[in-house]
Order: sequence, then structure tokens, then C-alpha cells
Amino acid sequence: MDTREFESRLEEATKIAGEAVLRHLPEEAGQQSRLTEAMNYSITAGGKRLRPILMLETYKMCGGCDGELIGFFMAAIEMIHTYSLVHDDLPAMDNDRYRRGRETTWYVYGDAMGILAGDGLLNYAFETALKAPEYCLKKDDITNEEKLEISGRIWRALSVLSRKAGIYGMIGGQAVDIMTQGREDEELLTETLLFIHEHKTAALIEAAMMTGAILAGAGERQIQEIEKCARNIGLAFQIQDDILDVTGDSRELGKSIGSDACNRKATYVNLKGLKQSGEDVEALSREAAAILDGFEGEHGFLQELILNLIYRRK
Amino acid sequence: MDTREFESRLEEATKIAGEAVLRHLPEEAGQQSRLTEAMNYSITAGGKRLRPILMLETYKMCGGCDGELIGFFMAAIEMIHTYSLVHDDLPAMDNDRYRRGRETTWYVYGDAMGILAGDGLLNYAFETALKAPEYCLKKDDITNEEKLEISGRIWRALSVLSRKAGIYGMIGGQAVDIMTQGREDEELLTETLLFIHEHKTAALIEAAMMTGAILAGAGERQIQEIEKCARNIGLAFQIQDDILDVTGDSRELGKSIGSDACNRKATYVNLKGLKQSGEDVEALSREAAAILDGFEGEHGFLQELILNLIYRRK
Repeated sequence: MDTREFESRLEEATKIAGEAVLRHLPEEAGQQSRLTEAMNYSITAGGKRLRPILMLETYKMCGGCDGELIGFFMAAIEMIHTYSLVHDDLPAMDNDRYRRGRETTWYVYGDAMGILAGDGLLNYAFETALKAPEYCLKKDDITNEEKLEISGRIWRALSVLSRKAGIYGMIGGQAVDIMTQGREDEELLTETLLFIHEHKTAALIEAAMMTGAILAGAGERQIQEIEKCARNIGLAFQIQDDILDVTGDSRELGKSIGSDACNRKATYVNLKGLKQSGEDVEALSREAAAILDGFEGEHGFLQELILNLIYRRK
Repeated sequence: MDTREFESRLEEATKIAGEAVLRHLPEEAGQQSRLTEAMNYSITAGGKRLRPILMLETYKMCGGCDGELIGFFMAAIEMIHTYSLVHDDLPAMDNDRYRRGRETTWYVYGDAMGILAGDGLLNYAFETALKAPEYCLKKDDITNEEKLEISGRIWRALSVLSRKAGIYGMIGGQAVDIMTQGREDEELLTETLLFIHEHKTAALIEAAMMTGAILAGAGERQIQEIEKCARNIGLAFQIQDDILDVTGDSRELGKSIGSDACNRKATYVNLKGLKQSGEDVEALSREAAAILDGFEGEHGFLQELILNLIYRRK
């Protein structure tokens, strides 16, 4: 796939994902309109829609073809991702006033509304995904057996989504991240850092791709392969982030690369060194791409997207 | 039903509800054990388990008899109620250090963990309720038609639960409550105060009782009646709270009752006067009790419980 074709496919996927999210935003009406405004402010702040795109592409690769069905889940996962950023930015958490060059939700609407907007987005993600069963079950051109089959897929997708977003997934990663902030790298074992990356970042990528596969009717082994592929993508993405942090710092501050005497921040690079980190990213992404090759459905764009994500420059 | 019988029934229902909640608590294990500890600290802080009890009694009244099925939802609604208290207590919200004579979650575990524990509880509520479909669908002694029927009920119960807990329910009420804090009673219309009470308090009571009815297989008209009954209970409960606030204030501070020159807090009593408020509580609870009389199933305890809740002294 050449660059032009990739970019045109990416543009198209981003458009579809963005439309799915917009279609399911809450109405800004009623006495609580300031709350819905704060929610919509955060979710329309110009994210890359990466998780819905990964979900959609995995769904299509596994043979899925119901755009409306997958749309409920695409919107839901973007709401979950967004709420996690809204809460992360709060003064009691990372205390960030700007994100993507725009004022953060709490900074515009206040702390209290920031908390409620996050709660609202998490809750509304489930409300949105829970519209899928009604959409499928009201179809009158499918048999009861087919309805039972599609119901089972939707229940499983919802279970995976909720688990990966929760305390055994993303929230768990955030809690460990908070707990270990300020600790120096000797104390922070590689195991803990891997736990944070696997949970805070990879879990929601896993949810996105697994949900796509499950809703398309993929088999058990395929779902497991997708989980592994997504885990690799999430980890490689995060390690690359650590690499860019260090190489960026190095250029900016004139520090020598990998000097942990100068830079005690607990990152993968500080623990493993720059060379090993680069090799790990390489191995993880190569394995992810190889897993996708095991699928019959079209996956060229998905592979290109993954490489693009992992080997991004910024 | 005499007092002794009522108390013994209440004790039994509280025990069943408490056990359902405990059974579904997350394990305190893994690197994120401080998070699960904070969640469990808040949910075992000795609440009355009112919402799960109302759910269970409505379920039984409507003919439900699967204790395990309703247990998932009883635990879920208590988690939702608890998360709302954990977030309400945060410094950025009400800044409360004590609740029920015990230190609040954020005061013990810190602000950041307070936010994450609340997020964790909300998310885990859905994870817990989403175990219900698997439990029902794996049964091998029921037909596909029955599976489809029960799947439909679970889906509807989840939809109602999520909607009533969300921005069109409880979270919406909290947002309007936050937005109107500090405003004086002339500005705060009765309509707004009713909105807050209906959403912040009544919506989750409605979710509890409607979920019970839906899972038991109640018909459409019955579900609507239960919603109305629950709304009345929630409103009467909250107005009675306002009455107790004023009569309590009066005794404590020696102010004359209903003197809005002395007490500018926007409460139902200040807007409608003490006499009218008392009459409204009376009318609302009488109507709630009358609705229950329309049900064939046993509802004596439920009626007694409602009267007890509404006419409590503290």
C-alpha cells in the first residue's frame, strides 16, 4: 500500500469514526445542558479516533458488515477514552490545563463539572453500547436462532469492553501509575512499568480490536490472536512514546542519551536502555503484523496503520 | 404487619442485600490492590442497602424467584449509589471528610484515588450486571425462546439502569445541583428544585424498582406504574429530608420555623412552606402505597418499608 492510498484510507476511516461518535453524542438540552456541553466539548476536541478506527478495521477484517451495529461500540469506546483523559487532567490528578492546544474540560467548566462530565461520559458509553441489542433484536428478517447468536456476541463485546476499561484494565493501570509517581527508577521494577503500560494504554486497544472481532463473529482462537496483537500494539506504542521522550529531551536539553543520572523518570528506556527499547518495539510490532497475516480478510491498511502509529516521529 | 414482623423482615432483606453486594466485590489483589481496597472501603461503610432491598422486594412482588440473577443487579445498583457518594464527597464537590461517622474515601486514600475509586465502582457496576446474561444463557434446561426472552429482559434492565444513573438521571441531577449551589431561593424555581430531587434522588430509586419488575417479567403497564411509585417514594423521601432539616434547624438554632429571612437555603420547605410540604409528602406516599395495592404479589413489607422511609425521624 503506497503512502497516497494509505492516507486516503486513513482519511476515510477517520471520517467514518468521527461520524459514528458525533451521531451518538448526547443532546445539549434540558436543565443539565451545561453538563452535556462539557461532555461534548471534550469529545469533539480533535482526537485521532484511533480506537474506533482500530475497532472498525478489525470488524471488517473479520467479515463484519453492519456499520450501524459497530457504530454504537465505536462511539462508546471513544467516550471511555475521552472520560479517562478528562479525569486524568483534573487538578487532583495530573493538573493539566491544556491538551492538544486547547483548554482542558475542568479548566473551562470547573473541577466539579470536570468530574461529572467524566462520569457522564463513562456512563453514556454504556448507555450507547446498550442500544445495540435493541437495534439487532427488532430486526424482523432474522430467525430466533440468529437473534440469539447476535445477542451472545453483543453481550460478550460488552463484557470485554467493560472489563478492559475497568479495574482489571485501564482504571487499574491509572491507579498504579498514580501510586508510583515520584518513585525513582531503581525502586520501580520493570514489571510495574509493564503493568502500567499494559493496563493504562494497551487494555483499551485490546478492547477496541477484540470488540470488533467478537461482533463480526470471529472464533475463539481468532479473538485470542487479536487480543495478543492489540497488546503488542499498545505496548509498542507506549515504549515508542518513552523513546521519543528521551530522544526529544536529549535534543532539547543537550543531555546524553540514556543517562539515568540526569533523568531519573521511570520510563521503559531508563530501565532497559535505548537500544533494547528500540529492539523491543521492533519485535512487538513485527509480531503484531504477523498475527494479522494469519487472517484471510483484508488487513493491509490495518498493518500500515499499526506501523504508522508505532514508528511515528511525534 | 406489626413492628416486630416488619423489623424481622427488614433484617432479613438487609442481610440478603448485604450478601449480594459482598459476593460481587472485586478481589483485593494485584498491583492495583490499593484501588480495590479504596472501593471496598467505601462500599462496606455501612449503608442501609436501601436500593438493593427495594429492587429485591419489587422483583419478588412481580413473581421473580432467581436470587442469583437479581443478585448481580442488586450489587450493581449499590455500587452506582456508592460511587456517586464517593465523588460527591470529593474536595472539588462537597468537600466532606466524614460520612456516617467514618472518614470519607478521598480523605483516607487521597483525592486522586477517590476519583479512581468512584470510576472503578461505576465501571464495576456494569461489569457485574453484565455477568447476568452469561449466567442465564448457559442454562441448558431452557429453550432458545426462553433464552431470548430472558436476554431481552436483562437488556432492558441494563438500559433502564444505565439511563437512570446517567446524564438524564442521577448525574444530571448532580450537575444541576452543583450549578445552582449558592443561589438564593427566589431565583431557584420550584421547577429546578424538583428537577434536582427527581434526578439526583428519585432516578436511582426508579432504577432499583423498575429493574426488579423488568427482570421478573412484569408487563409494560406494570413497569410504568412501578416507575411512578418509585418517583413518588424518591420525592417524598427528599422532601421529608428538607422538612427534617428545617425542623431540626429550628430546634437547634431557635429560629422560627419557615422563616426564609433567616434561612435562605433553597429547599422544598422554603419554597412551599412547611404545611404544604408535609401535605405533599402525605399525598406522594399515599399514592405510592395505592399503586402497590394494584399488584397481586405480596407487598405488605414493601408498603411498610416505604412509610418507614418517608416518615423517619432522622
